[in-house]
Amino acid sequence: MRIIVIGGVAAGTKAAAKAHRVDPNNEIILYQDESEVAYSACGLPYVISGVIADERKVIIRQPEDFAKEGIQVFIRHRVTSIDKTKQQLTVKNLQDNTDSVVTYDRLIIATGARPIVPNIEGIKLDGVLTLRNITDLAQFKTLLTKLQPQNAVIIGAGYIGLELAETFHDLKIKTTIVEKATRILPKFDSEMAQLVHNHLLENHVELLLGDGLARLHGHNGRVASVETESGKIVPADLVVIAIGVKPNVELAKEANIELGSTGAIAVDSRMETSVPGIYAAGDCCETVNRITGKSIWMPLGDIANLQGRVAGENVAGGDAHFPGVFGTAIFKSFKLTVAITGLSEQSALESGFDPISIVMAGSDRARYYPGKQDFTLKLIANRTNGRLLGAQAIGLGSVDKMIDIAATALLGKLTCADLENADFAYSPPFSPILSPIIVAAGILTNKLI
Amino acid sequence: MRIIVIGGVAAGTKAAAKAHRVDPNNEIILYQDESEVAYSACGLPYVISGVIADERKVIIRQPEDFAKEGIQVFIRHRVTSIDKTKQQLTVKNLQDNTDSVVTYDRLIIATGARPIVPNIEGIKLDGVLTLRNITDLAQFKTLLTKLQPQNAVIIGAGYIGLELAETFHDLKIKTTIVEKATRILPKFDSEMAQLVHNHLLENHVELLLGDGLARLHGHNGRVASVETESGKIVPADLVVIAIGVKPNVELAKEANIELGSTGAIAVDSRMETSVPGIYAAGDCCETVNRITGKSIWMPLGDIANLQGRVAGENVAGGDAHFPGVFGTAIFKSFKLTVAITGLSEQSALESGFDPISIVMAGSDRARYYPGKQDFTLKLIANRTNGRLLGAQAIGLGSVDKMIDIAATALLGKLTCADLENADFAYSPPFSPILSPIIVAAGILTNKLI
Repeated sequence: MRIIVIGGVAAGTKAAAKAHRVDPNNEIILYQDESEVAYSACGLPYVISGVIADERKVIIRQPEDFAKEGIQVFIRHRVTSIDKTKQQLTVKNLQDNTDSVVTYDRLIIATGARPIVPNIEGIKLDGVLTLRNITDLAQFKTLLTKLQPQNAVIIGAGYIGLELAETFHDLKIKTTIVEKATRILPKFDSEMAQLVHNHLLENHVELLLGDGLARLHGHNGRVASVETESGKIVPADLVVIAIGVKPNVELAKEANIELGSTGAIAVDSRMETSVPGIYAAGDCCETVNRITGKSIWMPLGDIANLQGRVAGENVAGGDAHFPGVFGTAIFKSFKLTVAITGLSEQSALESGFDPISIVMAGSDRARYYPGKQDFTLKLIANRTNGRLLGAQAIGLGSVDKMIDIAATALLGKLTCADLENADFAYSPPFSPILSPIIVAAGILTNKLI
Repeated sequence: MRIIVIGGVAAGTKAAAKAHRVDPNNEIILYQDESEVAYSACGLPYVISGVIADERKVIIRQPEDFAKEGIQVFIRHRVTSIDKTKQQLTVKNLQDNTDSVVTYDRLIIATGARPIVPNIEGIKLDGVLTLRNITDLAQFKTLLTKLQPQNAVIIGAGYIGLELAETFHDLKIKTTIVEKATRILPKFDSEMAQLVHNHLLENHVELLLGDGLARLHGHNGRVASVETESGKIVPADLVVIAIGVKPNVELAKEANIELGSTGAIAVDSRMETSVPGIYAAGDCCETVNRITGKSIWMPLGDIANLQGRVAGENVAGGDAHFPGVFGTAIFKSFKLTVAITGLSEQSALESGFDPISIVMAGSDRARYYPGKQDFTLKLIANRTNGRLLGAQAIGLGSVDKMIDIAATALLGKLTCADLENADFAYSPPFSPILSPIIVAAGILTNKLI
């Protein structure tokens, strides 16, 4: 049986490797249009900031590594069409621009996502960039080192935008974030997002909220300033477009593979598309929010990895299921760690829940233990039955631990009363005597009564 | 109503405070035989090591703080007998040695535990210490500063023994641990305990295993050497007895309050003893292992705190329940963090389970992210249904996070298949793309099939 995987970053490479492990007798071919496969897109901001000094480190595996396992990887090869009736693909070799037709028995689409780039005046000027894949990285590095920008404007206050703001700050580039929404971090509740907002201001990042990008002005082919919808002109010799990403679904759409309500490829829990034998995984497909049961598009590396594993197993004859996501995410913004799992209070309301919530100060050690670090924790629960609906944590210290505990609690459908009597690892260097999760859950339990 | 609390460290002070919050109209009296209340016994090793520079910091609250809330705290007062028929106590004022009789409506026994001290030759020599309460601390500090010991012997390789070994090492005191069992850390599986064993040797701590304390030899009233059961003589000018603790149950026993199979006071889930109206909480009482359903004695500060809260609520008319523990514990041994939750593989076998397990290397960041730290993770699951039974983690980095995720999974009765599709917070500075918990759970799930 010939299995073809389209796309070779997180989901694609994981799927190929898993399919091979499940049944090494199949022929497995992977096409990747970039020059690299199996790299960590999530590591790219840290390469730009210099935290990761050697950019080769974010490349986890080489085509030769896959070849050793009997997986044929073709880089610089783009699949340009799928004929689902004949079960064949047209593949363009980007090195010599030749096309070939290849048949498949099973197919995995892992085409990922790409940044949304508005079609506005000046968008093609030099110095206007996106950061998504390893090809973007080279451009970024060239620009930063050769042109030494002084003024950066980041369009969009999402995770990538905020991560880059820190990088630019470290590089002593004056940075402005332009965001169309009236506040940053829409997935977080506003009082939590405000903590990050304030922290950005403390770090001299300028925020232009409630204002979109209108056009870019240039000089000698190079970007010189950003004009916002309200008419503000912000000088800029570096502009990053980070207003969001969209799934690469054109190939699937042209083959009449169904898209879901989010616009990404629809799949069942086996990661199979509407066409039997064709699977999808990673940023190009949608999934299910395990709390609301609704379709959600969650283009994140770890989810891609999990989905790739499921698709890889099933394409090789297995029967694995991906149950969906809780919307867990984490990132750094200057000193702050910013993390969320489950529903925000606002999204809980929008989903028809009657939520209760608590926002409280937490810390990662006993109060008398040196080096204690503080954070703000918010828990959201269902007033009807006390079940945890979500958590947000922002600050220093064990923010990631708080969110992973909450993510596990969501997985176990735990109530605040359950969490109030959790048995966590306590010792003064690792936790206050009662974990902030226990304290917060206790307060919410009292609100229920 | 008059509520009397006997004991004022973790469980007692928590119970008093909670009872007051639930119903401020009751009279609440707390008797504590030491000079301090509301201190963190878990912080004491760090005071001795100097990590916590100011020992007053481990004292969380003063009697005056309680007085402001209307809770009367009597320090240096020891309750010497309970008359459950007359509902009265005999209380000795240790300052003037006078006795008084006090009636109560509801009683909470929170008398804690004390170190086991064998009745052997030389046990009363100067330089022979235990470390349990704040009174011991003063003795310890005096001895360390005035007598400048050169050779320490720690009897017992439990948490306190291992924590002190590190402290003595830092103080440049040559240290030997004498342990009657043939290996350290009996609650951990042997291959995990071996990691700590090796680490102790690397740090020049001598280990005498399978050998007990026979007697102590002295010179001018001061300890000079330890003689083991096998006849070895180890020079020692400081000996710490850390072979374990036992619950302070004499007062309860004399009042015919039932003890449980562990020897600690038996309580129901409301923390009520066999005598209606008399509650117990903390290290003096037993609880239930939530996996095996069996009685277990778990004298730990966080458990005492949780139990104190339940007892305090119920004594004031509430109906709170403490569901038991999973046996979670964490401590530091030199560079290593050592943590456990649930059953070890060995204890799972002893409890009649058919366990499967995986021991694997884990780390706390993406492999390419600087500062990545490594640990060893063991997961144990029930072969019959894949349910997680326990976890152990030893090493650097996010050991505490791994164990708290596992503890939450135990609370949610999650299977490895559940955990394999958990949605944890991933970003390169906080986790590998797949959490070690997910990887380990995946391997165990494959073992089930």
